[in-house]
Amino acid sequence: MENVHEECGVFGIRSTQEKGIANLVMVGLTALQHRGQEAAGIAVNEDRSIRFHKGLGLVHEVFPQEELDRLGSGKIAVGHVRYSTSGNNTVINAQPMVVRHVKGQLALCHNGNLINSYELRRELELEGCIFQTTSDTEVISYLITRERLKAPSIEEAVKRAVQRLQGAYSLVMMSPTKLLACRDRLGIRPLCLGKLPDGNPVFASESCALDAVGAVFVRDLEPGELVVADDNGLRSISCFPDHNSCALCVFEYIYFARADSVICGVSVQEARKRAGRYLAEDHPVQADIVIGVPDSGLDAALGFSEQSGILYGIGLVKNKYIGRTFISPTQELRDAQVRLKLNAVASAVQNKRVVMIDDSIVRGTTSAYIVRLLKNAGAREVHVRISAPPFLHPCYYGTDVDSENSLIARGHSPEDIARMIGADSVQFLSVERALTLAGSKKADSLCAACFDSRYPAGVPSITEKDRFEKL
Amino acid sequence: MENVHEECGVFGIRSTQEKGIANLVMVGLTALQHRGQEAAGIAVNEDRSIRFHKGLGLVHEVFPQEELDRLGSGKIAVGHVRYSTSGNNTVINAQPMVVRHVKGQLALCHNGNLINSYELRRELELEGCIFQTTSDTEVISYLITRERLKAPSIEEAVKRAVQRLQGAYSLVMMSPTKLLACRDRLGIRPLCLGKLPDGNPVFASESCALDAVGAVFVRDLEPGELVVADDNGLRSISCFPDHNSCALCVFEYIYFARADSVICGVSVQEARKRAGRYLAEDHPVQADIVIGVPDSGLDAALGFSEQSGILYGIGLVKNKYIGRTFISPTQELRDAQVRLKLNAVASAVQNKRVVMIDDSIVRGTTSAYIVRLLKNAGAREVHVRISAPPFLHPCYYGTDVDSENSLIARGHSPEDIARMIGADSVQFLSVERALTLAGSKKADSLCAACFDSRYPAGVPSITEKDRFEKL
Amino acid sequence: MENVHEECGVFGIRSTQEKGIANLVMVGLTALQHRGQEAAGIAVNEDRSIRFHKGLGLVHEVFPQEELDRLGSGKIAVGHVRYSTSGNNTVINAQPMVVRHVKGQLALCHNGNLINSYELRRELELEGCIFQTTSDTEVISYLITRERLKAPSIEEAVKRAVQRLQGAYSLVMMSPTKLLACRDRLGIRPLCLGKLPDGNPVFASESCALDAVGAVFVRDLEPGELVVADDNGLRSISCFPDHNSCALCVFEYIYFARADSVICGVSVQEARKRAGRYLAEDHPVQADIVIGVPDSGLDAALGFSEQSGILYGIGLVKNKYIGRTFISPTQELRDAQVRLKLNAVASAVQNKRVVMIDDSIVRGTTSAYIVRLLKNAGAREVHVRISAPPFLHPCYYGTDVDSENSLIARGHSPEDIARMIGADSVQFLSVERALTLAGSKKADSLCAACFDSRYPAGVPSITEKDRFEKL
Amino acid sequence: MENVHEECGVFGIRSTQEKGIANLVMVGLTALQHRGQEAAGIAVNEDRSIRFHKGLGLVHEVFPQEELDRLGSGKIAVGHVRYSTSGNNTVINAQPMVVRHVKGQLALCHNGNLINSYELRRELELEGCIFQTTSDTEVISYLITRERLKAPSIEEAVKRAVQRLQGAYSLVMMSPTKLLACRDRLGIRPLCLGKLPDGNPVFASESCALDAVGAVFVRDLEPGELVVADDNGLRSISCFPDHNSCALCVFEYIYFARADSVICGVSVQEARKRAGRYLAEDHPVQADIVIGVPDSGLDAALGFSEQSGILYGIGLVKNKYIGRTFISPTQELRDAQVRLKLNAVASAVQNKRVVMIDDSIVRGTTSAYIVRLLKNAGAREVHVRISAPPFLHPCYYGTDVDSENSLIARGHSPEDIARMIGADSVQFLSVERALTLAGSKKADSLCAACFDSRYPAGVPSITEKDRFEKL
Repeated sequence: MENVHEECGVFGIRSTQEKGIANLVMVGLTALQHRGQEAAGIAVNEDRSIRFHKGLGLVHEVFPQEELDRLGSGKIAVGHVRYSTSGNNTVINAQPMVVRHVKGQLALCHNGNLINSYELRRELELEGCIFQTTSDTEVISYLITRERLKAPSIEEAVKRAVQRLQGAYSLVMMSPTKLLACRDRLGIRPLCLGKLPDGNPVFASESCALDAVGAVFVRDLEPGELVVADDNGLRSISCFPDHNSCALCVFEYIYFARADSVICGVSVQEARKRAGRYLAEDHPVQADIVIGVPDSGLDAALGFSEQSGILYGIGLVKNKYIGRTFISPTQELRDAQVRLKLNAVASAVQNKRVVMIDDSIVRGTTSAYIVRLLKNAGAREVHVRISAPPFLHPCYYGTDVDSENSLIARGHSPEDIARMIGADSVQFLSVERALTLAGSKKADSLCAACFDSRYPAGVPSITEKDRFEKL
Repeated sequence: MENVHEECGVFGIRSTQEKGIANLVMVGLTALQHRGQEAAGIAVNEDRSIRFHKGLGLVHEVFPQEELDRLGSGKIAVGHVRYSTSGNNTVINAQPMVVRHVKGQLALCHNGNLINSYELRRELELEGCIFQTTSDTEVISYLITRERLKAPSIEEAVKRAVQRLQGAYSLVMMSPTKLLACRDRLGIRPLCLGKLPDGNPVFASESCALDAVGAVFVRDLEPGELVVADDNGLRSISCFPDHNSCALCVFEYIYFARADSVICGVSVQEARKRAGRYLAEDHPVQADIVIGVPDSGLDAALGFSEQSGILYGIGLVKNKYIGRTFISPTQELRDAQVRLKLNAVASAVQNKRVVMIDDSIVRGTTSAYIVRLLKNAGAREVHVRISAPPFLHPCYYGTDVDSENSLIARGHSPEDIARMIGADSVQFLSVERALTLAGSKKADSLCAACFDSRYPAGVPSITEKDRFEKL
Repeated sequence: MENVHEECGVFGIRSTQEKGIANLVMVGLTALQHRGQEAAGIAVNEDRSIRFHKGLGLVHEVFPQEELDRLGSGKIAVGHVRYSTSGNNTVINAQPMVVRHVKGQLALCHNGNLINSYELRRELELEGCIFQTTSDTEVISYLITRERLKAPSIEEAVKRAVQRLQGAYSLVMMSPTKLLACRDRLGIRPLCLGKLPDGNPVFASESCALDAVGAVFVRDLEPGELVVADDNGLRSISCFPDHNSCALCVFEYIYFARADSVICGVSVQEARKRAGRYLAEDHPVQADIVIGVPDSGLDAALGFSEQSGILYGIGLVKNKYIGRTFISPTQELRDAQVRLKLNAVASAVQNKRVVMIDDSIVRGTTSAYIVRLLKNAGAREVHVRISAPPFLHPCYYGTDVDSENSLIARGHSPEDIARMIGADSVQFLSVERALTLAGSKKADSLCAACFDSRYPAGVPSITEKDRFEKL
Repeated sequence: MENVHEECGVFGIRSTQEKGIANLVMVGLTALQHRGQEAAGIAVNEDRSIRFHKGLGLVHEVFPQEELDRLGSGKIAVGHVRYSTSGNNTVINAQPMVVRHVKGQLALCHNGNLINSYELRRELELEGCIFQTTSDTEVISYLITRERLKAPSIEEAVKRAVQRLQGAYSLVMMSPTKLLACRDRLGIRPLCLGKLPDGNPVFASESCALDAVGAVFVRDLEPGELVVADDNGLRSISCFPDHNSCALCVFEYIYFARADSVICGVSVQEARKRAGRYLAEDHPVQADIVIGVPDSGLDAALGFSEQSGILYGIGLVKNKYIGRTFISPTQELRDAQVRLKLNAVASAVQNKRVVMIDDSIVRGTTSAYIVRLLKNAGAREVHVRISAPPFLHPCYYGTDVDSENSLIARGHSPEDIARMIGADSVQFLSVERALTLAGSKKADSLCAACFDSRYPAGVPSITEKDRFEKL
């Protein structure tokens, strides 16, 4: 499937104030920008129709003030940020997808990935549907609008449509009069509800976006829950009444989400510190300082430090002004570009035994570089601790994690890897520990399929990559 | 209907050479650029799929070399330039429209305007179709792909689909293996066929695009004709076998087309010179020099000169470096901006009685300005001759001509207008003369509905503007 | 000298209205844009200082409304457009050059080229001066400001400084309180004075810029004249009282200036028509139609037509939407790009004997292409008439004409050239005729050194190209 | 003086490899980007001349690969990044300044600010010099090139010139054959020397740029030292042989420099941690967690934690995707924009007594916002500790610190401020402590004039702001 790589951020809001609603969405999307930097889009209602704008780039690039002004004022708005994957990066696939159908207009924002989109698309094509994009979102749009022909309301149409979807999806949608949010049967992707000071609702992939717009966190949506917000207030609809399990993607805690977000009642920073504490317990080491690889390794390093009693330090500095990578005529320059991104703080690591916490080892090249950096800066020993298990299985639920991401972990023991990257030791978090990152009671409510191959929402029957692109 | 204003250019080509096919389309579209400066797009086949790129702006802005390279090589390609109208100028509505359907992919380029698109769209929506744009092209795409479910071939599907269309359309389309071109039942919009030196076919709105790519003109498509080009060569299909009238838009000769194009066997320059000759015959005047308002008035001025024996001169110079109009803080500056666009050549008109040929008088402000310019430069008399009748009726077939375009001609006699714009006399081409611009034999095969309200393809039953935008 | 290629446009204005003075300069520069498309700049006085902005590109690209607004209001402003030459195209060399010196600020705009700038620069360097650009303008700035140390006024300093300059220069300058304009001893480059409706003065390289801002033409500056405009009105100063010859560059009439400008009392269009008439007299031919190569050949074609009685026609159409030239993978595409720029109007030339008027033959490739184009369009014969003599000698006075520009004319007879470019005949204007383009009385007051090597202002003693760039 | 605000970064390099030298400078400048984001420039030698490019923006914006390629290869190169101050942000003032003089070319990069530039400029103007910029760098260029008229070498000219300069300057310069670096008499601005693996020298404002290009740190330049690097190796020249005091700007440690740099033998991170330790000693507090305001407060927070034994935490998360600030139609949105930049991690501070370390309190608005943020996130107490004394005096040596920067600290006691910003307590580092940030032995070799008004290099006699801009 060509559209596996869809880690994204979704946002929706109602505002009685109307003025500046597009700016509010822009603020929310900027808070979710870490979930996707490829493309951004905003749709706003206006009278009985929907205006929208989307484009490639960061939120503030796609939305200069003129564009926000052009979107005008409205009572309902939704927005989307899209993950940057190589290839297929066209504005055609950007979201929200805004469609006109027999009953009016609909704007959809989608985070996640279906496993049965091929079958659904095929079925729709056989009924004469045409597709202008390669995204699941267009499939979902069709299902909803076709149900809408018979259903008494848009929310009923959404309910019926999502019952046909298999896989992961957090949806934020709007008709010209209603704001809707829906989370898949297993709640694989996060989605939460907040409240503005004036009582209006906000939906967002992560709570940090609620904070940004000045809303207070109310609760996460339940798995399979559809919430409708209109002039009559909020209504909750259960799309899968007989179903009540949960399988939140554990990688949200490990990597995707921002440290200041709270997902399913658990602080992301707290989960990461817990990973660090587990590593300290399971793989202790004699050392003088523990440092994190910025930005995602810092919280786990703090946890490791607290658990082990080893001093926490800032041993690596990231350059925040790096632009695109240039084509390097010489090896000397290629090295320089890597060095530019990250530098060691010699005074912090000199003559010390260092524990270095990172969230993954992919091909090992980066890890080897950082280890060398620390040793060149005078570190006596470097012990690498990874705050996640090795990924061994592909993700079909909307993340860019696939088995290639840990080539080095496949068929190599931690000892092998340590030797390969020049570290004095290497250890990973165990899968069992990963499953308790949100607390031991939630072990059954996390999806860790990329580590343990237990796919709670099944796997796609057809998996050729880029089928639609190529065909 | 919000999409009335669709004067555009279409282009399609096959190439055995494959390499650089996107560049060839770029050349063809640049030759058609005068038909639309709002947006441009190119689609190229590749294996069994279609790659495409489109964007807002001029062809060379939308297609820097990197974009052309990215489109790669292929055997079939189509392209489109879109007219710049105010509002609704988004890349979403740019063409080609590329859709995936049950049998594969289809790219469509469309010039013209349907009068029954509202009804067709409604019917499709009731069957569960969704629309992402506000263009007729999406309606046509649906009709074709739905017919394709039952039809044995794409050409058969196109034939069945266009039989349902009412209005004006010249279509250039491609599947990954076939290039197709089709002209509406009355041939309202032009479309011609050319042949590259290696025998491959080219389709274009105007013959000047054939010249640009080095193809020779073969013939115009017949009204209602569908031509298919694939590995087996060309095949012609008649979509309306029982129908054989023609109603080419007369405005193609008067204004739209380029002087070096030949449409339906008639040179555009020749038609314009004929307009000038008719004016000289019907509305003679004693004068020393005849000048044209650049660029479109020049050919008619030449005809006027030849017929009347009055010397032809170059009395007005256009500044080709004008950018966007700036917001002027003072009247002095607003005047300056107008003066910047056009200046009189004093030595050409000083102490002379001047005949000034233009192709239209809209509100009269511009004409009044030019007359004043010539008088300030020393012209003793200025006699205005317009190479078209006044537009009095809206066009529903894809041009931006509506009744507002000649406010001054409504309810005012030529004598009134002369007084209003400060000219010594004003005269228009008569409707009868306009109908013979392509030669007296073709009087019955031209559409001049904007002058005489005889609409050969009917009028839309629903005409609210921007229905889809607003709804 | 690296800065030989300096065909430029200069403009200066006073305005009592103050508001929008930068916009007025923008209008004037846009009217002069044909004299230079590389860079543009505007300086405006403000209190006792000077604000300025300059950049690479067309006037409207360098000056979006924000930039004009930023320049604020003022009573005096000057502007410059710079010719696009390959290489050395940096904003550092753009004008006006604005310098601070002991008595305040000075902004200079310069059109022309000195022949003793190397010696002057060297002398200044030996006194400790530093140069940040490679332009003559910086040399002139130094001379003026150093004279200003001793001179009682800026005008006296300018007078003393220009007495040291050899070569061609039209200068428009401003201090925060005075506007100054000065033309070299021989008046090689044009410069004229106009008057706004409110009586304020305007200076411009060509009268078309006066028209654009709504000023009336007053007179050309005399060779060696310095005009100062301040709160006390205009004052004329003669910088070379004992000198009274003139040597206006004949190429201004043939090529540089706009057809609607009047230079030294002679209409540019009229001079060009005269060139056409001379060609008809000196090199008559039996033909059916005479056409010009747009844009500069059109006026001469008109003159040829009038003199010969052969019908004038529009046989070539230029595409005005061409962007940058792309890199062509194939010969087919390279050809297409050339075809795109210019196309023949078949109906105008078919079966006809054609006289084609152009203003130069350089390497012959373009001429050969146009001849082929006309023949392919059906022309029976093509007779080429060039409205200038062949350039045989370099220009040291600020034009981009050098001997390479007519490689084909060197050592080849007109008959040879006709054969080489496929024409039925080729003829040039004679040097004698060129010298009378402004009327027979002005034969002694034109510089035609590029044709006859009689350099009225001498030649540089040091001519290595790009000395400063390389050293 | 209009050019007080000149915190910048300078860089110079020799390379035997030649190829890609501009890329190496780009890497070095990117590592120094935190010292200036307004403009960037690079100059490279080529044969006996100097090529250069400079522009507004970040290094990677000003130098796309094409620009780097255009600079070609060379053996010597220098570069500059310029601080972004409001106003006067034109490319004219960007560096390196490249000048041509009697003996050839010179490129200068300057970090710092002179106090006698007005007098020097005046003196030069009286000798007929002209100035095209408002920067000290042009004054220095003149002094050097005028000395060069008499001096036997460029290094001797530089020595003589800098003896006339008063104030702060770190210079990196190049002639086409020599690379030179010079630090002012008191070493107010930092400048260090490194060595590439192949032995070639590198000069940079901070050692982090040496790390980036793969060079090892050799030593800081001595105050008043001039180092020349050419084909004969390195030579050190003492410009002020009788002088040997040092007055490094203490603000380099507190704020400007990057944590991984080492200046005058002291690690910047270590100095910041020391500030934190001092605060813990001098202003202890009962608390549960100590957090830093990112990025510059983090190291001091670590020091406070180590000294006090209070747990270190990550309590604030910065959004790294913020673009320009938009104009907010409502107060709600203005608040949202502030919230977007920084968010609290509730799980880290909830129910805790928090010590919050920042490097300054300016107007108090930001501090008040952060305190409120922490309290809203559940912090029971917030104790603010500032890792610097309040600035009370203007800096004349090239930093953007002026007395306005601490309005709130003037005339308000820490207790007042605590009340004003809603904190439970506020304390500043004392001036005595600040003077020992680089170790107690270096107390006499730091400049802390902005805290204690003891100006080691004097103050300017003329201080009107923007004199040159306005005059």
